[in-house]
Amino acid sequence: MSIHIREDLTRSEKIQQARKILNENKHSLDAWSILIQDAQDKKITESREFYESLITQFPTCGKFWKIYIESEMKDRNYEKVEKLFQRCLIKVLNIDLWKCYLNYVRDTKGKLSSFREKMAQAYDFALEKIGMDVYSYNIWNDYIIFLKSVEAVGSDAENKKITAVRKVYQKGIMTPMTNVELLWKDYCTYEMGINPMLGKKIIDERSREFLNVKRVTKEFETLVRTIDRNIPCIPPTIPQTADEIKQITAWRKFISWERLNPLKTEDILLVIRRVVLAYEQCLLCLGYHADLWYEVCAYLEQTSHGYSERGDAQLSKRFLDDAAILYERAIQTYMRSNMLIHFAYADFEEQRLNIDKARSIYNRLLDINEANLKDPTLAYIQAMRFERRTDGIKSARTLFKRAREDIRTNHQIYVAAALMEYYCTKDNNIAFNIFNLGLKKYNQNLDYILAYIDYMTHLNEDHNARVLFERILSPNNSIFKQLQPTIWNEFLKFESQVGDLQSIKKVEKRRLKIYSDLNELEGRETLLLVDRYKFLNLLPCSIDELKLLGCKDLSNINLSSTNT
Amino acid sequence: MSIHIREDLTRSEKIQQARKILNENKHSLDAWSILIQDAQDKKITESREFYESLITQFPTCGKFWKIYIESEMKDRNYEKVEKLFQRCLIKVLNIDLWKCYLNYVRDTKGKLSSFREKMAQAYDFALEKIGMDVYSYNIWNDYIIFLKSVEAVGSDAENKKITAVRKVYQKGIMTPMTNVELLWKDYCTYEMGINPMLGKKIIDERSREFLNVKRVTKEFETLVRTIDRNIPCIPPTIPQTADEIKQITAWRKFISWERLNPLKTEDILLVIRRVVLAYEQCLLCLGYHADLWYEVCAYLEQTSHGYSERGDAQLSKRFLDDAAILYERAIQTYMRSNMLIHFAYADFEEQRLNIDKARSIYNRLLDINEANLKDPTLAYIQAMRFERRTDGIKSARTLFKRAREDIRTNHQIYVAAALMEYYCTKDNNIAFNIFNLGLKKYNQNLDYILAYIDYMTHLNEDHNARVLFERILSPNNSIFKQLQPTIWNEFLKFESQVGDLQSIKKVEKRRLKIYSDLNELEGRETLLLVDRYKFLNLLPCSIDELKLLGCKDLSNINLSSTNT
Repeated sequence: MSIHIREDLTRSEKIQQARKILNENKHSLDAWSILIQDAQDKKITESREFYESLITQFPTCGKFWKIYIESEMKDRNYEKVEKLFQRCLIKVLNIDLWKCYLNYVRDTKGKLSSFREKMAQAYDFALEKIGMDVYSYNIWNDYIIFLKSVEAVGSDAENKKITAVRKVYQKGIMTPMTNVELLWKDYCTYEMGINPMLGKKIIDERSREFLNVKRVTKEFETLVRTIDRNIPCIPPTIPQTADEIKQITAWRKFISWERLNPLKTEDILLVIRRVVLAYEQCLLCLGYHADLWYEVCAYLEQTSHGYSERGDAQLSKRFLDDAAILYERAIQTYMRSNMLIHFAYADFEEQRLNIDKARSIYNRLLDINEANLKDPTLAYIQAMRFERRTDGIKSARTLFKRAREDIRTNHQIYVAAALMEYYCTKDNNIAFNIFNLGLKKYNQNLDYILAYIDYMTHLNEDHNARVLFERILSPNNSIFKQLQPTIWNEFLKFESQVGDLQSIKKVEKRRLKIYSDLNELEGRETLLLVDRYKFLNLLPCSIDELKLLGCKDLSNINLSSTNT
Repeated sequence: MSIHIREDLTRSEKIQQARKILNENKHSLDAWSILIQDAQDKKITESREFYESLITQFPTCGKFWKIYIESEMKDRNYEKVEKLFQRCLIKVLNIDLWKCYLNYVRDTKGKLSSFREKMAQAYDFALEKIGMDVYSYNIWNDYIIFLKSVEAVGSDAENKKITAVRKVYQKGIMTPMTNVELLWKDYCTYEMGINPMLGKKIIDERSREFLNVKRVTKEFETLVRTIDRNIPCIPPTIPQTADEIKQITAWRKFISWERLNPLKTEDILLVIRRVVLAYEQCLLCLGYHADLWYEVCAYLEQTSHGYSERGDAQLSKRFLDDAAILYERAIQTYMRSNMLIHFAYADFEEQRLNIDKARSIYNRLLDINEANLKDPTLAYIQAMRFERRTDGIKSARTLFKRAREDIRTNHQIYVAAALMEYYCTKDNNIAFNIFNLGLKKYNQNLDYILAYIDYMTHLNEDHNARVLFERILSPNNSIFKQLQPTIWNEFLKFESQVGDLQSIKKVEKRRLKIYSDLNELEGRETLLLVDRYKFLNLLPCSIDELKLLGCKDLSNINLSSTNT
């Protein structure tokens, strides 16, 4: 993927080369790394533009956001820092980024009169979002130290403080994470310090549950050990490298583990939050994997259905909204050109009757100015089907018109539109007209012609089918000779089915002439004869005999016989 | 092909082993060779049975016929010898066999009063049949010697003799063959001996044409040099050995050369005779090559059409009859189980309105006692189509009934019969009934079910199609789970075409359940989603993305796009 940058170059040469590389391949991490180093050495005013391009390219990379923010911090541009945090925090659940945020609040808000509230809010916010991270111990611990440090005057205030500290401790020790044992020990000391009798009782009550957390923490640590959560998101290489496979496998294993509720908790909402966090963190690194986006959304949808069935409309809606947020994030970042995710998202909104929303998703994909797709034919087809389902055939036709006028579309749009008329409005005439319209444009396109023929021969109107064959194969028609044999084969198949021997042989003879004109006969007349007699997967001779007859490409012959 | 027979075995051990080998593989030439040696050492009464089996196995091998005949000759069983000659001569145009025949006539008929006539007849017969062979010089020369040796009394008889000798000479020197120059020299001497003045004139007149013959002889000799005309006929190995390819290539080159009229003669009949002789001799060795049989028959048919167009009904008929003889010989020997040649032969007879003859060809192929075919389904289908064309749908139905009762037939017969009703009688109900009848028998046959589904979905009757899907996939139905995913895929394709999102998703969900029951899901839900959105060769993601989704077998996906 990345071109190597020679070590013996001067710094400015390296920078120049890195820029050159990125012009060709914006996914070269080596090149980015050199430019990041350079930016860090410069003043923020000079490197801000570069940082913006960096986070545009890697919108989910916590490490890069952090570097950008730290550069602004160095220059004390706190307003800018806060705007940056606003842009990334909720979407980028990266533990280091969040720790950086908390440090920032502590270091810069200390002088405010509202500091205590602001700081506590920040900790609560962080613990809600990322308190389940395996490396979140510092946040928990810092929060407790912060709470302990709060001055409390009077027994009332003292009691309030104890309740607050205890609450965080008790939540923390129930959270599997590295160093949770330190937290446990601290907590024990803390309770014993307040009231040894009561403390012992509280600790006894909780120690069994804590053993469970300890066990789960061990599994947790093993599972995340191979995961590198700071890898910037780049498209996977095909075939995937060993490192890539290692990462995706580790993430999948981790996610599956979370889905199986390793804590064996009865708090289903907790399980769901943990699963979604796992997916979200995974997608920070593996955002080009469409299946992960789809899976987490399908998981949320499924969860929503569960609540809906149990009559909880509020939770049901919440999870659907969560799914929509993730879908939206997907198509705004790495899935910008991915039809599959757009279609799934549109279906998702259609399903919950957000028809306009669904329509806007198709439209964004089709937008010629966005140019996310080189060939939007399939997107038009799905959009047409959507219109047919939700608004009727007329809207579908309007879209077909738009597709025809979009120069990027291809012949399949005509096939889809014609078949839609045939299957849905059952109007053969319209279907026929559409096929003919397409034939004007795609009269040299074999796939199109074959689709048209397939339609006509299945209609069971012999005369019309023959007219079509003759029209396409007419010497006046300009169709390339190289395309003709396939069409003659279809004609022969058709006549073998319905014609008399005379017409079969007539077609065969004309087909032979084409092969001969193309110099593709080479004494293989007998091989061509096979076409007259085959039916489904039955051949008039064995495969060995077929090879003897000079058949070079057996893949053209349908030999599948799943069971006999 | 042939198992090696060890050299250190005793003679009787070798014979025993050869017999064993032939029990398993009747095409082992090594084994036959040992038994032939043994037979030659025995008395003919003891080995006659063996010889019969030899020529049954190798009915076109001149060398083996000759060995058999010579064994009978040794025992002076002239009646048997003559019967044997009658059985083989016309079919086996092998030069050594014919020379053997002429020697036999000369050696055994000398004492008869009709010897002269009999001998001359034999020579004329031989020259007509095989006088164009490259090694036929001896026959020409012997005939001339024989004619010269005839006693002629009186100038009238003398003149007659000269005319007879001259006629053979003049035909011989116009025939390209090895040693034709000796014949030419002889002839010159002969004419000069009779009348130097006239002789010189005759020779001058002919020498130009003879130069042409000489040139053609050289090409002829080069072309046949690599051909081994004594190779017994065995089925080609697949892939063909270098030796086999060498032989077939040489033969083809030789035949093509003959077809191009190298003599540049205006005697078209001569060209035809030479071409057919080339094919016939080739088929003595390569009789398992269906294409050669078909080609020679097609060549004769084509020739016949030419004469028919020029109004020569007699020659036209003669060549058609010749083609019929060759077809007949093919299906009685090496093409006994070859459907292709049977079909071509039947079509050939149907074409010239020999309907009963054509029917008998199908019947011989279908004859359960002959058991030429393991699976005669395609033969029944072609026979049904034949009956439909020549006698109407009722005869075709009778044949379909017979096919159903033949335990060797397979599911395709139902598909063919149903489609015949649909396409030819346009009676959907009968087609429907036939498909249902077949479904009772082939309810576990995926190919059959898919053919039925294909028919139903093309009928454009949504309700009936859905009923069929539900019927096949009903939990009460005993269809194997492993077969179901493919059917669900078809159902999904159908609903994507005509259904609303609800029905699409419902089918998808039920399909997912099957995959999950089969433990074939393995986190590939997203891959299955692809099926919901694809259309013709359009996919909602790139091939690379498809691989990322875990798609292992890209061959299932129709990616062909001949031109775009």
